[in-house]
Amino acid sequence: MHIHNPIFIPGPTNIPDSIRKACDMASIDHRSPAFAEILQPALQAVKQIIKSKAAEIFLFTGSGTLGWEATITNCLSPGDKVLIARNGMFSQRWIDMCQRHQLEVQIIEKTWGDAATQTDYQEILQNDTNKDIKAVLLTHNETATGVLANIKQVRQAIDAANHSALFFVDAVSSVGCMDVRFDEWKIDGLVTGSQKGFMMPAGLAIIALSEKALKATETATLPRTYLDVKDMRNSYKNNSYPYTPAVGMMNGLLVASNMLLTEGLDNVFARHYRLAEGVRKAVQAWGLELCANDAQYYSNSITAIRTPAGFDAGKIVSHAASKYQVAFGVGLGEVAGKVFRIGHLGALTDVIALSGIATAEMTMLDLGLDIKLGAGVAAAQEYYRNN
Amino acid sequence: MHIHNPIFIPGPTNIPDSIRKACDMASIDHRSPAFAEILQPALQAVKQIIKSKAAEIFLFTGSGTLGWEATITNCLSPGDKVLIARNGMFSQRWIDMCQRHQLEVQIIEKTWGDAATQTDYQEILQNDTNKDIKAVLLTHNETATGVLANIKQVRQAIDAANHSALFFVDAVSSVGCMDVRFDEWKIDGLVTGSQKGFMMPAGLAIIALSEKALKATETATLPRTYLDVKDMRNSYKNNSYPYTPAVGMMNGLLVASNMLLTEGLDNVFARHYRLAEGVRKAVQAWGLELCANDAQYYSNSITAIRTPAGFDAGKIVSHAASKYQVAFGVGLGEVAGKVFRIGHLGALTDVIALSGIATAEMTMLDLGLDIKLGAGVAAAQEYYRNN
Amino acid sequence: MHIHNPIFIPGPTNIPDSIRKACDMASIDHRSPAFAEILQPALQAVKQIIKSKAAEIFLFTGSGTLGWEATITNCLSPGDKVLIARNGMFSQRWIDMCQRHQLEVQIIEKTWGDAATQTDYQEILQNDTNKDIKAVLLTHNETATGVLANIKQVRQAIDAANHSALFFVDAVSSVGCMDVRFDEWKIDGLVTGSQKGFMMPAGLAIIALSEKALKATETATLPRTYLDVKDMRNSYKNNSYPYTPAVGMMNGLLVASNMLLTEGLDNVFARHYRLAEGVRKAVQAWGLELCANDAQYYSNSITAIRTPAGFDAGKIVSHAASKYQVAFGVGLGEVAGKVFRIGHLGALTDVIALSGIATAEMTMLDLGLDIKLGAGVAAAQEYYRNN
Amino acid sequence: MHIHNPIFIPGPTNIPDSIRKACDMASIDHRSPAFAEILQPALQAVKQIIKSKAAEIFLFTGSGTLGWEATITNCLSPGDKVLIARNGMFSQRWIDMCQRHQLEVQIIEKTWGDAATQTDYQEILQNDTNKDIKAVLLTHNETATGVLANIKQVRQAIDAANHSALFFVDAVSSVGCMDVRFDEWKIDGLVTGSQKGFMMPAGLAIIALSEKALKATETATLPRTYLDVKDMRNSYKNNSYPYTPAVGMMNGLLVASNMLLTEGLDNVFARHYRLAEGVRKAVQAWGLELCANDAQYYSNSITAIRTPAGFDAGKIVSHAASKYQVAFGVGLGEVAGKVFRIGHLGALTDVIALSGIATAEMTMLDLGLDIKLGAGVAAAQEYYRNN
Repeated sequence: MHIHNPIFIPGPTNIPDSIRKACDMASIDHRSPAFAEILQPALQAVKQIIKSKAAEIFLFTGSGTLGWEATITNCLSPGDKVLIARNGMFSQRWIDMCQRHQLEVQIIEKTWGDAATQTDYQEILQNDTNKDIKAVLLTHNETATGVLANIKQVRQAIDAANHSALFFVDAVSSVGCMDVRFDEWKIDGLVTGSQKGFMMPAGLAIIALSEKALKATETATLPRTYLDVKDMRNSYKNNSYPYTPAVGMMNGLLVASNMLLTEGLDNVFARHYRLAEGVRKAVQAWGLELCANDAQYYSNSITAIRTPAGFDAGKIVSHAASKYQVAFGVGLGEVAGKVFRIGHLGALTDVIALSGIATAEMTMLDLGLDIKLGAGVAAAQEYYRNN
Repeated sequence: MHIHNPIFIPGPTNIPDSIRKACDMASIDHRSPAFAEILQPALQAVKQIIKSKAAEIFLFTGSGTLGWEATITNCLSPGDKVLIARNGMFSQRWIDMCQRHQLEVQIIEKTWGDAATQTDYQEILQNDTNKDIKAVLLTHNETATGVLANIKQVRQAIDAANHSALFFVDAVSSVGCMDVRFDEWKIDGLVTGSQKGFMMPAGLAIIALSEKALKATETATLPRTYLDVKDMRNSYKNNSYPYTPAVGMMNGLLVASNMLLTEGLDNVFARHYRLAEGVRKAVQAWGLELCANDAQYYSNSITAIRTPAGFDAGKIVSHAASKYQVAFGVGLGEVAGKVFRIGHLGALTDVIALSGIATAEMTMLDLGLDIKLGAGVAAAQEYYRNN
Repeated sequence: MHIHNPIFIPGPTNIPDSIRKACDMASIDHRSPAFAEILQPALQAVKQIIKSKAAEIFLFTGSGTLGWEATITNCLSPGDKVLIARNGMFSQRWIDMCQRHQLEVQIIEKTWGDAATQTDYQEILQNDTNKDIKAVLLTHNETATGVLANIKQVRQAIDAANHSALFFVDAVSSVGCMDVRFDEWKIDGLVTGSQKGFMMPAGLAIIALSEKALKATETATLPRTYLDVKDMRNSYKNNSYPYTPAVGMMNGLLVASNMLLTEGLDNVFARHYRLAEGVRKAVQAWGLELCANDAQYYSNSITAIRTPAGFDAGKIVSHAASKYQVAFGVGLGEVAGKVFRIGHLGALTDVIALSGIATAEMTMLDLGLDIKLGAGVAAAQEYYRNN
Repeated sequence: MHIHNPIFIPGPTNIPDSIRKACDMASIDHRSPAFAEILQPALQAVKQIIKSKAAEIFLFTGSGTLGWEATITNCLSPGDKVLIARNGMFSQRWIDMCQRHQLEVQIIEKTWGDAATQTDYQEILQNDTNKDIKAVLLTHNETATGVLANIKQVRQAIDAANHSALFFVDAVSSVGCMDVRFDEWKIDGLVTGSQKGFMMPAGLAIIALSEKALKATETATLPRTYLDVKDMRNSYKNNSYPYTPAVGMMNGLLVASNMLLTEGLDNVFARHYRLAEGVRKAVQAWGLELCANDAQYYSNSITAIRTPAGFDAGKIVSHAASKYQVAFGVGLGEVAGKVFRIGHLGALTDVIALSGIATAEMTMLDLGLDIKLGAGVAAAQEYYRNN
């Protein structure tokens, strides 16, 4: 019999019952006041979670990928230049999207496992005296490598260069897990999704735009209709929506956001740190290396773990799935076969994390790696019981 | 206390429990074989419902609007000319989308309430000796007016003109309600959504492309990433998906499709005809007119009902909502204030339809219209009990 | 395809989504504090609904029938005499239960359709100078006939006779629909269930005992273990339960009770009166008679409708079920074949009631009764729109 | 935020989604054919699970305790003598129930942790030359101690004594986990419940009676109404039920039974053995003793673990609950404070079991016991990965 195990992919996460029930709604008339009672507080709650008073929030039926597309098509025009670091699969995909949309993409190449630094961005921005760069893009949490960029420092790079570029941040797998401060860090376009820190099913792309970004939409010429935020904005003012909305998902977002706010954002972030730290202790006990090269850039959503040279890390994922019915994340792109990933974001507890760690141990030993059963578990237990 | 009444908007429909439960899924790893077991049969089932062997089906997290955008961005290039009839709000919106995407749109203007005919299209296509028209667009079921176009005849127009244009059909509110024959009518791009005949929540855009349309994607230059069917196609071959999929929705689609196929498409269509006919009998008993001007083009998904001159039809919708907690559809665009709409598609029975008819009667009488209580109900009852 | 219609049986009722979701709970440890957080407020909420400060509430996994058994086995001993009126199937069943438990049952025989009056009871009680009668039993709402007894008057009969008997009331299908005042009417044992006014699935027997009844449990010798309220009481004090409880059902009871209290009991009762009155207007329009003979005893939970002599009323129920997939209640016992019943309790609206009325009309006409389609609907519509 | 952890109490178990969804049903008319389509296959499926062709199955809304009461009240009369071993809290409770129902109970006293043997029973039965003993009672799986009796041997004791007594078995926490052969072992009355091997919420008492037991019901005089199997039997023949049934629970039972049968009973039992064996390996690695004294009587549903003398085992349960939000079972009765219990029955995997073992380790270390973190986990991992 198939009994559902917890999952350890970097999203979708395990979903709390209350959120599943909130998403599972009978149809209502989305042109009635009942819709407004879901939409408006959901928009407000998202603002609180990204610590913003200034942002306007837009909810699209779609995934995080659609959110990326929403930021660029609403704010940019063909030929516009954007600056972005590439240090993993998700930054790579955003780059590819920009190129397909006829943007000129200047890439800061980084080793996968490294984070782009303030210096990386600042140098280029300072040299861009013509202000050709229209937008600076940053992948906050590189889900492929478990590397968390420092938004604040990249903002400082822009400011230090006295640059006028828009600042777009992919925070798909960080919002609701790690600190994101839209206003303080002067983010202009932020992208997230429902299936990560919000602990929901995939299905909502959530974006936040600053006043500056909204102004940019007035002149941006990349074609968009479904994604057009002007239509969204006008509709929201009338408590309506420019097409048939996924009301249950919005209701789920409202419930999920309120769960996070009730827990308290500091507690949410501390919980993710604690879960992540236990996993990192286990990795250390196994004698393995993280993909992330520098402790100051460790992600608390996801840990990518390097396996010994010559070993195909992908086998860990397939073996854990077939023998133990447990899902881990494969390595992607440049680190395919070299890392496997343990997602520890969203609805997770230390107790459930331990079952993931224990499964990883059995799997690695099954596949011939030199792992002592219980070693990683013990390291994580020791951490969890004391913190 | 708020007790949920059935709804009578033209989608989302009332949702059967089994479909709600299918959508409400625990998270699975969408990179595991479990995903293939949902994706592949869902794609196959959709093909059967549109009576196609040749079509390739693509499922996007999004709404029907996104589906429109998928057909044009994948198959067309800026400056391409498209031909489309405008006879209601949904054809109007597709036109607007085409224009925003820098297509040249040739519009066949029709009175709202009329259907575009074979002649309308044929004349223009025959005159297009240069074959400048790259795509012929048709709104199958104009949800704003309750008018059902004849796909077959428009196909004949194209054939009679010996024209090479692609044939795109918006069948959002017809698939699963009324007959759609993708192969027989040589449709190249068909758009539908989850929240109409599939009786699901909004959240999936479903498109079907012919081989000819797929060939067109190779040269089409409108920018797209999220919507790119080449990426989708490649992913599907590997039982994967180009971004995080809404797995529960796909599972719902599978269950919904199997419900329709088990019922039998002919029975599904007959049921919708029967439900619609009862509503039309009621309208006749009320002494009111349909918005649809010609019986051969009556929709079986939705009935738009004209109210007497000088009366604001929108008040019916707001009064029914506030006094009886029942949702009908407002008039849109040119017929705003002139019609109200009763949706009778998806998960509906004659018994539930009667409660909608009864509510419309009470509402109209409350608002001063000359309606005899029970008259429409009796006409519908008489029809339902004998058919 | 089977699409679920609303049901019109006298319980279980249509269940609101929020209650279904409350019942559908993951397992918790019923020996943990989480259980207390459900149990204690549920007990308190039930007390409010029966307007009592004095009652102790006991929740058994079981049905209303079990609740009857709980009152008699906890408070009485073999050979004890009880007085009860028989005017329908449910009073009959309680009588049968008493007899099986070796109680001596003195029966006030009433025509089915009549209510037992104060006089009926008072005469006997006054003549019982030896106080042999240990308990007076009353079926508040005779679900078989749609007759609502007057608890207050029967209480007055007991008081007028200056009698010491315990006063047990079957309020299974009245609590949460019609007024029940445990304290004011000095009820000693009250029985209800989850699947009527509480709008839940069947599965909980709910009883309330007065201090006098609890004192009687000390000497009562009818055997009981599962039903023993002393065990329950002791467990409740420790926030525990004497056997494995149906926690989800208790959670549902808590949510349901709070829904009723939030609506306000007066509003709940007014809603049931309004729904019932619409149905009664329809019956009048059909030219049919109620089973209940006297308007002052009409039930607002259920209406039993007499069909013309020679006609088998049971056919209405089977025909409505098979042709229209709508459930009405059959006649039971003495009125089997003579009445059919429309339940209008719990989660119901006027709009949904109209669909039941419309179905009854079609059914009766199908079966050859002299019914004018729409007539009953119109009468109910007229009432509903004006009240 | 509270995120739900798996639970490790000896029932209710973790509940699979498909079973929760099966239980969560819209109301149907339990007097309609739809009810028969649930009831009859559920009865048949239960028969298969207890390997019987001869048994008649009865489903009561209630808990396992009610099932005990059903066997004795239907088959026995006041003053009847029953023979039963007492070796834990659940046998003790059944004894108490028998005594409250005025049966004469002959008790075989066993140390808690031991199983009653064939010899224990046989000696007494052979000496009962008058055949005064009307029923032999056996607690198959003593949930308080984790001791599994040998039904077959007790049957042999009865046979060896050539005794006519009925044979009643409490298999509440064994059916669906460990082998139970109703026909082969000539059981006359078997009691189980929904919340153990059937992986459902609490709420159904399930009993099986042999022809001999059914014959005994004809003369048994213990009072019963709700529990009367004659009423049940007659109702079942008409696809009805003697009171309002908990239809959703029956539907859940049907789905759960089919899950078990599809898995295959041998696989179900092997899975429970495997899960249990892993837990036992962990206990051994901790250097602790089982409450069960003899390996041949180890239960595969539940393991009761003795803690060192002077240590209050109850603290493990309360500490695990408060610090880790994980539920274990406390010691009951004679072993209160001396053991804690890990439930490993129902919907459980090795991966989830490991999280329970890991939590127990942290808890015990937190409380000062001499436990090496990871030790028990490693022992269980080693077992699970190799079996």
